[in-house]
Amino acid sequence: MNFQVIRRMMGWILLFEALFFLLPTITAIVYREREVFSFLICIAICLILSGLCLIKKPSNQSFFAREGFVTTALSWIVLSIFGALPFVISGATDSFTDALFESVSGFTTTGATIFKGTEVDELPRCILMWRSFTHWIGGMGVLVFIMSLLPLSGAKNMFIMKAESPGPAVGKLVPKVRETASILYKIYGILTFILFLLLLLGDMSPFDALTTAFSTAGTGGFSNTSNGFSGFSNYSHIVVIIFMILFSINFTSFYFVLCGKLKDAITTEVRAFLGIIFVATLFITLNLRLSDFAAEYSFGETLRNAAFSVSSIISTTGFVTVDFNLWPSFSKTILVILMFIGACAGSTGGGMKVSRFVVLIKGIKHEMSRMLHPNQIKKISIDGHLVEHEVVRGINTYLAAYIFVFVFSLLAVSFDKFDLITNFTAVVTTMNNVGPGLEAVGPVGTFADFSVLSKLVFIFNMLVGRLEVFPMLMLFSYKTWKK
Amino acid sequence: MNFQVIRRMMGWILLFEALFFLLPTITAIVYREREVFSFLICIAICLILSGLCLIKKPSNQSFFAREGFVTTALSWIVLSIFGALPFVISGATDSFTDALFESVSGFTTTGATIFKGTEVDELPRCILMWRSFTHWIGGMGVLVFIMSLLPLSGAKNMFIMKAESPGPAVGKLVPKVRETASILYKIYGILTFILFLLLLLGDMSPFDALTTAFSTAGTGGFSNTSNGFSGFSNYSHIVVIIFMILFSINFTSFYFVLCGKLKDAITTEVRAFLGIIFVATLFITLNLRLSDFAAEYSFGETLRNAAFSVSSIISTTGFVTVDFNLWPSFSKTILVILMFIGACAGSTGGGMKVSRFVVLIKGIKHEMSRMLHPNQIKKISIDGHLVEHEVVRGINTYLAAYIFVFVFSLLAVSFDKFDLITNFTAVVTTMNNVGPGLEAVGPVGTFADFSVLSKLVFIFNMLVGRLEVFPMLMLFSYKTWKK
Repeated sequence: MNFQVIRRMMGWILLFEALFFLLPTITAIVYREREVFSFLICIAICLILSGLCLIKKPSNQSFFAREGFVTTALSWIVLSIFGALPFVISGATDSFTDALFESVSGFTTTGATIFKGTEVDELPRCILMWRSFTHWIGGMGVLVFIMSLLPLSGAKNMFIMKAESPGPAVGKLVPKVRETASILYKIYGILTFILFLLLLLGDMSPFDALTTAFSTAGTGGFSNTSNGFSGFSNYSHIVVIIFMILFSINFTSFYFVLCGKLKDAITTEVRAFLGIIFVATLFITLNLRLSDFAAEYSFGETLRNAAFSVSSIISTTGFVTVDFNLWPSFSKTILVILMFIGACAGSTGGGMKVSRFVVLIKGIKHEMSRMLHPNQIKKISIDGHLVEHEVVRGINTYLAAYIFVFVFSLLAVSFDKFDLITNFTAVVTTMNNVGPGLEAVGPVGTFADFSVLSKLVFIFNMLVGRLEVFPMLMLFSYKTWKK
Repeated sequence: MNFQVIRRMMGWILLFEALFFLLPTITAIVYREREVFSFLICIAICLILSGLCLIKKPSNQSFFAREGFVTTALSWIVLSIFGALPFVISGATDSFTDALFESVSGFTTTGATIFKGTEVDELPRCILMWRSFTHWIGGMGVLVFIMSLLPLSGAKNMFIMKAESPGPAVGKLVPKVRETASILYKIYGILTFILFLLLLLGDMSPFDALTTAFSTAGTGGFSNTSNGFSGFSNYSHIVVIIFMILFSINFTSFYFVLCGKLKDAITTEVRAFLGIIFVATLFITLNLRLSDFAAEYSFGETLRNAAFSVSSIISTTGFVTVDFNLWPSFSKTILVILMFIGACAGSTGGGMKVSRFVVLIKGIKHEMSRMLHPNQIKKISIDGHLVEHEVVRGINTYLAAYIFVFVFSLLAVSFDKFDLITNFTAVVTTMNNVGPGLEAVGPVGTFADFSVLSKLVFIFNMLVGRLEVFPMLMLFSYKTWKK
């Protein structure tokens, strides 16, 4: 293991974190909040440690797959630990575990919170800005961001990109990884800016519009109030529905749209993703209309709430306009299933990714056809491209590893005296970076009352979800560390 | 599709079913129950239809994989439909769906029941005998049984054995499939007889001893009373614990023991299986001792209840000595996980099978090592044997198909107004052929109150679980039926 080069990467991470802290610092200055000092302290800490890490150039530049995995996992851990400092220093919370939970929940774009009830309403604006900004930073991947700015070696770029990017296979838009990262970030920035402008046109203040734009773009889900999204206008709801869906689509599709290749943009994954949203919204609307809720809401409201909840959950954003924990079993079951499915690969959304399920379904059809005709040789292909054997094997192993981490997490958190639905959906929602679950962790719930052990498990789950299992597992594997 | 040869196999199935009906008929005669006529009517129906199917020899003997899958799936469906007749004709239930549920639950060795509360206590002995006997017939596989008696062609045997036998790969003990089937059935018969004798030595009547032996051997779980197993002595509990575990071990191991190859008998799967039972029992005992149950039960009772529940659930038998639905979340979570894991391959137990999980875990380790060293070429091996690439792929596809069937079943049954835990565990317990779940389908619950649609879904799930997904899916695939 080349520790020198990893130390240097941590130095860059801390330097960038110091830069990221500038936005909440400016917010604190604008709104004259005394928490400005907390952020200045955090900036100082990050700069000093960053200097210590960067002062000595590494003599050994070798960088292989194992360094890629370890760098990625450690970067996210370091980023989260220092990102937790403002919560503690500002006094927003007394517990470092809680602060770390909030920070990890931010960077991994989960949006689950340890603030209870109306505690969120009391938070200073600079802290609210930091929460939403962590979503935006984490959404596209912080290492990919650094890569798009720093001149790193090609091998280093590729290993890190593979470990950090969501989805079963990494696609390069242009031959150079660095330029690919740069294009992706430009699309990300422009889309976020458009969203910000559209929200400003509605009933939102510039502050709300900016934080909501960050939370939506990263498919995060932190809200500035304990009412979640129910306080905003129908116009804002509809704008956010559209952008939650847009940010859950593979960014490669936007690149193709920009290049005028509209046909290439509408991939099988995108069609499947939109199809699932349509069907789920339809089923939930019908289910709610046939339930006791029919009296309470009009058809239009029901449809909007259903569409908002479906888009929010499948995009793994986690904004809420309504307490879906009160919905009938059928609707709740659909939402839990959507949590697992998640967004498209190569988007800012979490979950297991639609493309993985597309490959799995094709794999089943394939195997059944092979059972009937054992001598037949056929390969899985999607959108006219053959799916490499390695990718299929990778998806299968991902599924198995995901299940094992899920089961052990479920066991660990079931020591706390919550019911099985709370435990199950708490693990589902953290591992898929959604945010809300059901029962005690439902739309009006909180993760505050779990034990420290459970919170650490959820922190691990959120990182496992964001980095798609393997980089985090690698940290615990003996083989990673042996000479 | 060669319908002639399938028709002929259905003829054999019906003939054997008529023979199977003899046991409950004799029971009815011994106990002078008027339901003897119900069984005589069933025998007559089966014999007539069997005659119609067998009268004409098929001109075309061709038999390939697709005929193997269809024959297997249809055999189980036909067996279950005619096995349901006694319940309706005798008036034990008015609903044919309920009767079919009970019959499928019997043959697939699930043991879930549609009889409510004390209704079971009112059933005539011949019906109770039929319920337990269906477990015994289904446990080892009815087609394998017929194969061990009829001189079928080798290809036919192998295709059927592959489709009906539980586990990721079919092992032949001796070169001929037919002799293998015969050896397996002899071991099965002898073990059942030993269990019967041991139970007679305890506090059981000959009737209870025989039905319990059948239910245990098939890892089924139907009980003769509404008290389940709590009415019997500690001695009976311990005997049944041991035999539930024995019948969940790959029968090949017993063959090796008989051949004196003790070392070959203790496979990785058997060690993992016993290890899981030990750890789960330990954890549940500790969890119960640290809960409110500590006051209610002594340490010995707690340990015995934990060991009984663990063995009953992982072997997918489903006998209950205690209402584990009242246990703390941690213990309940363990039991639900055990339902998924299930027994060893090649046993009478259900579930996803320990060996599949062994291969999946090795697959994950393997993939992680390949991620670190991409040029390394290594293969998965268990007990010194290489695991074929086809077997690994088969397990992965099985897992994916299992998950898809699971999710669609969960959605379908969630239309009924039960809570999510009831729905989830009802699907888990039927798809893994266990019997009890939690909440409304817990140890003191029943499947009676589900809608007809949900019951049909559960019937499908039980067959999917027993035949390990693919034979049932093949029935619904267009490719199976096209020329």
